[in-house]
Amino acid sequence: MQILVLHGPNLNLLGAREQAIYGDVSLDEINQAIRELAKQERVVVDIRQSNMEGELVTWIQEARGRFDAIVINPAGLTHTSVALRDAVAAVGVPTVEVHLSNIYKREEFRQRSYVAGVALGQISGFGPTGYLLGIRAAIEHLKTTRGSVVS
Amino acid sequence: MQILVLHGPNLNLLGAREQAIYGDVSLDEINQAIRELAKQERVVVDIRQSNMEGELVTWIQEARGRFDAIVINPAGLTHTSVALRDAVAAVGVPTVEVHLSNIYKREEFRQRSYVAGVALGQISGFGPTGYLLGIRAAIEHLKTTRGSVVS
Amino acid sequence: MQILVLHGPNLNLLGAREQAIYGDVSLDEINQAIRELAKQERVVVDIRQSNMEGELVTWIQEARGRFDAIVINPAGLTHTSVALRDAVAAVGVPTVEVHLSNIYKREEFRQRSYVAGVALGQISGFGPTGYLLGIRAAIEHLKTTRGSVVS
Amino acid sequence: MQILVLHGPNLNLLGAREQAIYGDVSLDEINQAIRELAKQERVVVDIRQSNMEGELVTWIQEARGRFDAIVINPAGLTHTSVALRDAVAAVGVPTVEVHLSNIYKREEFRQRSYVAGVALGQISGFGPTGYLLGIRAAIEHLKTTRGSVVS
Amino acid sequence: MQILVLHGPNLNLLGAREQAIYGDVSLDEINQAIRELAKQERVVVDIRQSNMEGELVTWIQEARGRFDAIVINPAGLTHTSVALRDAVAAVGVPTVEVHLSNIYKREEFRQRSYVAGVALGQISGFGPTGYLLGIRAAIEHLKTTRGSVVS
Amino acid sequence: MQILVLHGPNLNLLGAREQAIYGDVSLDEINQAIRELAKQERVVVDIRQSNMEGELVTWIQEARGRFDAIVINPAGLTHTSVALRDAVAAVGVPTVEVHLSNIYKREEFRQRSYVAGVALGQISGFGPTGYLLGIRAAIEHLKTTRGSVVS
Amino acid sequence: MQILVLHGPNLNLLGAREQAIYGDVSLDEINQAIRELAKQERVVVDIRQSNMEGELVTWIQEARGRFDAIVINPAGLTHTSVALRDAVAAVGVPTVEVHLSNIYKREEFRQRSYVAGVALGQISGFGPTGYLLGIRAAIEHLKTTRGSVVS
Amino acid sequence: MQILVLHGPNLNLLGAREQAIYGDVSLDEINQAIRELAKQERVVVDIRQSNMEGELVTWIQEARGRFDAIVINPAGLTHTSVALRDAVAAVGVPTVEVHLSNIYKREEFRQRSYVAGVALGQISGFGPTGYLLGIRAAIEHLKTTRGSVVS
Amino acid sequence: MQILVLHGPNLNLLGAREQAIYGDVSLDEINQAIRELAKQERVVVDIRQSNMEGELVTWIQEARGRFDAIVINPAGLTHTSVALRDAVAAVGVPTVEVHLSNIYKREEFRQRSYVAGVALGQISGFGPTGYLLGIRAAIEHLKTTRGSVVS
Amino acid sequence: MQILVLHGPNLNLLGAREQAIYGDVSLDEINQAIRELAKQERVVVDIRQSNMEGELVTWIQEARGRFDAIVINPAGLTHTSVALRDAVAAVGVPTVEVHLSNIYKREEFRQRSYVAGVALGQISGFGPTGYLLGIRAAIEHLKTTRGSVVS
Amino acid sequence: MQILVLHGPNLNLLGAREQAIYGDVSLDEINQAIRELAKQERVVVDIRQSNMEGELVTWIQEARGRFDAIVINPAGLTHTSVALRDAVAAVGVPTVEVHLSNIYKREEFRQRSYVAGVALGQISGFGPTGYLLGIRAAIEHLKTTRGSVVS
Amino acid sequence: MQILVLHGPNLNLLGAREQAIYGDVSLDEINQAIRELAKQERVVVDIRQSNMEGELVTWIQEARGRFDAIVINPAGLTHTSVALRDAVAAVGVPTVEVHLSNIYKREEFRQRSYVAGVALGQISGFGPTGYLLGIRAAIEHLKTTRGSVVS
Repeated sequence: MQILVLHGPNLNLLGAREQAIYGDVSLDEINQAIRELAKQERVVVDIRQSNMEGELVTWIQEARGRFDAIVINPAGLTHTSVALRDAVAAVGVPTVEVHLSNIYKREEFRQRSYVAGVALGQISGFGPTGYLLGIRAAIEHLKTTRGSVVS
Repeated sequence: MQILVLHGPNLNLLGAREQAIYGDVSLDEINQAIRELAKQERVVVDIRQSNMEGELVTWIQEARGRFDAIVINPAGLTHTSVALRDAVAAVGVPTVEVHLSNIYKREEFRQRSYVAGVALGQISGFGPTGYLLGIRAAIEHLKTTRGSVVS
Repeated sequence: MQILVLHGPNLNLLGAREQAIYGDVSLDEINQAIRELAKQERVVVDIRQSNMEGELVTWIQEARGRFDAIVINPAGLTHTSVALRDAVAAVGVPTVEVHLSNIYKREEFRQRSYVAGVALGQISGFGPTGYLLGIRAAIEHLKTTRGSVVS
Repeated sequence: MQILVLHGPNLNLLGAREQAIYGDVSLDEINQAIRELAKQERVVVDIRQSNMEGELVTWIQEARGRFDAIVINPAGLTHTSVALRDAVAAVGVPTVEVHLSNIYKREEFRQRSYVAGVALGQISGFGPTGYLLGIRAAIEHLKTTRGSVVS
Repeated sequence: MQILVLHGPNLNLLGAREQAIYGDVSLDEINQAIRELAKQERVVVDIRQSNMEGELVTWIQEARGRFDAIVINPAGLTHTSVALRDAVAAVGVPTVEVHLSNIYKREEFRQRSYVAGVALGQISGFGPTGYLLGIRAAIEHLKTTRGSVVS
Repeated sequence: MQILVLHGPNLNLLGAREQAIYGDVSLDEINQAIRELAKQERVVVDIRQSNMEGELVTWIQEARGRFDAIVINPAGLTHTSVALRDAVAAVGVPTVEVHLSNIYKREEFRQRSYVAGVALGQISGFGPTGYLLGIRAAIEHLKTTRGSVVS
Repeated sequence: MQILVLHGPNLNLLGAREQAIYGDVSLDEINQAIRELAKQERVVVDIRQSNMEGELVTWIQEARGRFDAIVINPAGLTHTSVALRDAVAAVGVPTVEVHLSNIYKREEFRQRSYVAGVALGQISGFGPTGYLLGIRAAIEHLKTTRGSVVS
Repeated sequence: MQILVLHGPNLNLLGAREQAIYGDVSLDEINQAIRELAKQERVVVDIRQSNMEGELVTWIQEARGRFDAIVINPAGLTHTSVALRDAVAAVGVPTVEVHLSNIYKREEFRQRSYVAGVALGQISGFGPTGYLLGIRAAIEHLKTTRGSVVS
Repeated sequence: MQILVLHGPNLNLLGAREQAIYGDVSLDEINQAIRELAKQERVVVDIRQSNMEGELVTWIQEARGRFDAIVINPAGLTHTSVALRDAVAAVGVPTVEVHLSNIYKREEFRQRSYVAGVALGQISGFGPTGYLLGIRAAIEHLKTTRGSVVS
Repeated sequence: MQILVLHGPNLNLLGAREQAIYGDVSLDEINQAIRELAKQERVVVDIRQSNMEGELVTWIQEARGRFDAIVINPAGLTHTSVALRDAVAAVGVPTVEVHLSNIYKREEFRQRSYVAGVALGQISGFGPTGYLLGIRAAIEHLKTTRGSVVS
Repeated sequence: MQILVLHGPNLNLLGAREQAIYGDVSLDEINQAIRELAKQERVVVDIRQSNMEGELVTWIQEARGRFDAIVINPAGLTHTSVALRDAVAAVGVPTVEVHLSNIYKREEFRQRSYVAGVALGQISGFGPTGYLLGIRAAIEHLKTTRGSVVS
Repeated sequence: MQILVLHGPNLNLLGAREQAIYGDVSLDEINQAIRELAKQERVVVDIRQSNMEGELVTWIQEARGRFDAIVINPAGLTHTSVALRDAVAAVGVPTVEVHLSNIYKREEFRQRSYVAGVALGQISGFGPTGYLLGIRAAIEHLKTTRGSVVS
């Protein structure tokens, strides 16, 4: 099984700033935890971060036929990018949406997700743990609904 | 560690009806899976279902000092019960909100959760797996932020 | 044919108060008229009233396999109970929604019905006659679309 | 007793098209059923159909002093015609609003009825049966609240 | 000077019904008063009533080159007819909008006028007097801004 | 008959600025025309202008028992002053609302009038003529509904 | 004089949690203060608390003929229960609505009260004192508008 | 192939008025251009204009079995007529919606089209050329999805 | 203890007009009752009324250091004056908001209070009694949270 | 004549996925058809696709002085990109907006186009044919309103 | 050059209260800084403060012909006064709107400014510095667009 | 002191197009003026422009520790980019938002700024001068609240 993990804009700053909202764990530490879980669960993960909507769209497009699932935290693009939504819908790779903070405790505009309507499901509010839950959700989904497409 | 698992109205019918939305797994099977995970993770779970808002409110109230966390699927009450929200806020027991279906793909009125604003986080759309992710999220939260209050 | 007739909160007060809106016929008189029509149309009716959302939900759940149709006046819960809607949707028993007053002449908040979206149809504004029309609508529906499930 | 039955725009096409929404019964068959019920209940019915808002308004105006009640399915005009509403309000003939489909399961714009606010009541979702229930509702209303104006 | 006076749907019923809202003066009496004022002010008036949106649109279209001003009470069409608005805008004949009742004291939906945005001005709430004020407003407007186009 | 004519904020600038919207007639010229009409119609007018909401409120309060009618152009206060509305409602002196420009062709916020809901009626869009129509409307109203209270 | 005092969901937790919002006084202490005031004012009070909407509805129904007034803090049900509103409207016992916190400083959804529209009045934001003010308001109302129905 | 071309209210005035919005080409010139294209593309066109909603509804109804496609500019009815929408939906003849002006640059209320939801597609903003594009769109659609029904 | 009692616009008319809404007690009688309660509770009251927003703002500003609490009925300014709100927030004197009528039974625009968000609490619907409850609320608040600042 | 054809995000996936919405024609096939029409109509086309908002903005900027018209399908950016709108407005090159699907039959958020307000016109719902109609619309517009700027 | 500086309601309290929002600088200190800048830039300033909407309106009216620019902080009136807006629009003196706090970080109702729509521009969030920037903006504007009207 | 000046999408076209809105000064001229002021005020400025949201996000991220303040005109991204807002919030560098045009005089959608909620303040409507005011605002802010972080 191959899982593509995507971090959206500003997640590269994690751990350094706004710790009250996002916690003090750095993106590297999160990625390390993801890789450990992947190893333990025997799945292959490819982790990338971008501040560019278009680059994320392209990575999602390229996931078709290469990855069995996507775990994505679209960050600020969650609430503004129809292009991201369309990419997820177009490639048909099961996609898990993850948010570090509980977006339902925050500004009104953060409570609409363009991605949620085409995602498998959404995990919000558990900090770095959310990514690990997302990986597990993807694996469990692939196990029960179909075999791995890729490997 | 002690975790209270609460199922809201109509979840007792799971597996029998509307399988297109909720899947074909019965509540008993879900509870069995929860108990297995609990055993494996060495936590104690107490699982209950009610169609009565007031009964759920009372169970949440009683959780203080007895349970370290609550995992709840408030079902239809998610969108209509401020009393449930107030109960969660009042007892201060970390609470994970779980939904079987992806509520962001459904009717407009299902996209507002009164519970989300006071919950630790929300997991939506992964079917029965959501409860297991919720248990894991609760355990992980308790591990990192404080010791068990109860046991 | 077996029909379950459900009266929601406060309908037990009918005829005693707010006659300008709800008329001067008591619930007993309405029930008597329902029973007479049932007798004449040779259907069995079971009539219940509750002020508790959860009790109504449970009664609807239990209707599956026991009743061929439900005629319900959800009263105040019409506008606030997703749990009731979910119960009706879950059991799949054809359900007729009845309102004594014309809810479209009243407060704005009375003009949204959570039940209507999953009901067979709605009858509003004809006073006690509405229940009788509801019984007839249920019988006619059962006659034309399928045989009796129960008897 | 004299009852005017009015069919709004496009109802002349019934039975031929969009059977998933409106059923496969033609307007002639519905009218036949109405006439049979009228005969059985000993009321006189006059049934008309028009695609013109203005013609329907005029027919309603002329109903005063000639008909004891109106049973109307305003079809698409339900949601757009204040003139129709004003006509019903102006003539003061008790009016029953009927819809074949359950308008509360359909597009948002179909959930506002200008006529409902001045009608005796509304019957929605029971297909052709709705007209028969409407006739009965009108008769019952006339019996209980006043004698026949016309005959 | 030539002025076209148009009465919209249901105004032919004036004086007979809903006197609490519209007063007890009949349309004939209003028209008589209009003609008297016209005579006194030495303008020619042509008064028509229709229940048909399309007929009113056509009359407005034909007013170009024949009438110097239009005084119109669009009645229920005020709130629903873009076609009427477009006709007024298209012919460019100065148009005075008149309402018998004060529409700002009535239902929410009566407080939007499609015609107002293209009319010279609006007179609302003065009963039959409103038409006479409308005639005067039209005359005064024609006197101050341009000579008569027609006579 | 005694009529109080009130001009709201900024109307003292009329004729000097924003002629595209308000015309080139000065407030003095308007007042002169009002006085001429009053003389001709044999009514007494008292004309005042204020930029202060509170002063206008007080003048309206004092109109009780002294004036038979009020003709008011509340200008910018039309859309923001509940106190003005309450004053008009409290004194019960029939009040005609006048606007120079057609407020329904202007900014969205100018299309809500707090005064309209308690006024006799509204005249909008006819420039200075509007005041004269307002005087006539007041006189006509007083003639038909009751004798003069004051003189 | 007999007054029924009702506490809605979660008020049994008062004083123990969320003291920043609700203060540190327990429900028992509040009830004690209510009883002292009642004794001093020579009225009989019956105080109850429930987490169940249906139970509160039933208690209100039973108040007719037994209590002269109701003082109720509907807590979370304030914003979601039409059934509670309907019960208050149906029994016609003068009802005072009390809130500990100033609901107008809190979440948007707490600023709509279904009960307020049928209550005598509302007291919000004075903490436990609010109940005492509510008792006084009820007594004063009964004194001035009618004698005691019960005792 | 047979194509019915329908012009809605006020389009008969084209070229004479409001040229800034609608251009200076008359309806006759547009119809001439349509006929030339039809001849060149070897399709038969029948072109009609009406100010009456009901007449347009009837023409659309009659198109079934006689025309392979409809090209319609519903003009002002676009935004107000559910009856027109229902007619298009009912007859099932592929329908192309055309607007001369770019309705998305105009008043808010012109940006909702009841017809668009049941039309094949919409062409807006290209002036008279829009009709020719509409004819081409209809022909292309008929070529690729099905043969001609009529001829 | 020193309490400033402020009456907003139009309250000087109390008892004379609109008795159905505001009762038949005059402002003098209310003030008398306030003074009696003050005497009995041994607090000093200073009572003022103004129709001017600016004057009320100034009085509130001057209350700092001179009064321990303010009891204010902002009347029509409740719903329109941010300046009043800012004054209350700026001086930091605990402020009780009082309304004679139950503003939640009235027009939609009366249900938003700019003052409520910065007031200690709100009392609405108890007529003149509301002021007395307000005085008591202020006294009780001062007793429990801090000593008198002034005397 | 030189026309720039721009395809927005995800259009590179056409034909491979979501054929129910977008059809089974690939982008290459569409481009081939565009080139054939261009050849036939003797215009030069330059066709590009990008997933990057910024790249599309830059291409539009560069079109000034090089292209006579732009035909653009902004895809998901239609509904979210003010930058794209500003680019179109800034360069002043006549721009035709094309959508493959009928966006008025889809999600609510797809019914607002930021581009439409500055485009020449919009073509929506005709699949690949839409591009060809767009090319024709551009050519026709250039022919009638001005000569070619570029070649 | 002559510049009128206006401070709205409650700004006279600056520095004494709510320092978290408005800072600890008093109005006198701000005015001193304004005068220093004026001296340095060789412009004459006239600085006034009022709690009265009407007084501010009058001062703005009188600015015509006497001042070359206005720098105004309308404080709470920003969000509620159309009269202020109309005054600014009427006198045509270029007006700079200044806010001490960043109004876009505060309550929803503070994010609508009636003045902004007719002001030259708006400066918000820089504390006392905002006034100095406003003076500079006014000077710069006068330099580039026209000579001084006054001196 | 080091200040980063960022220009968003399409600002590279300044001076060439839409001069009615944005003026006739080119971006180079603006940058020149900024550099002159910087020199005069002895601050270092780094000026960049991009059409790419992601590039701007990255530049803002990199500003931490390198720049003391940011002056940004996010242009079209102002209204659509949460990613930009998140970047500003994350880096914590004081940020001044500048707009050439008065965005409060333009389209509705331009009146919401995602950046304003996390910016120090906003300057809108003064054309190129706005940048200079922004530079001054940043310098003044740095002087009064903290020393320079960088130099």
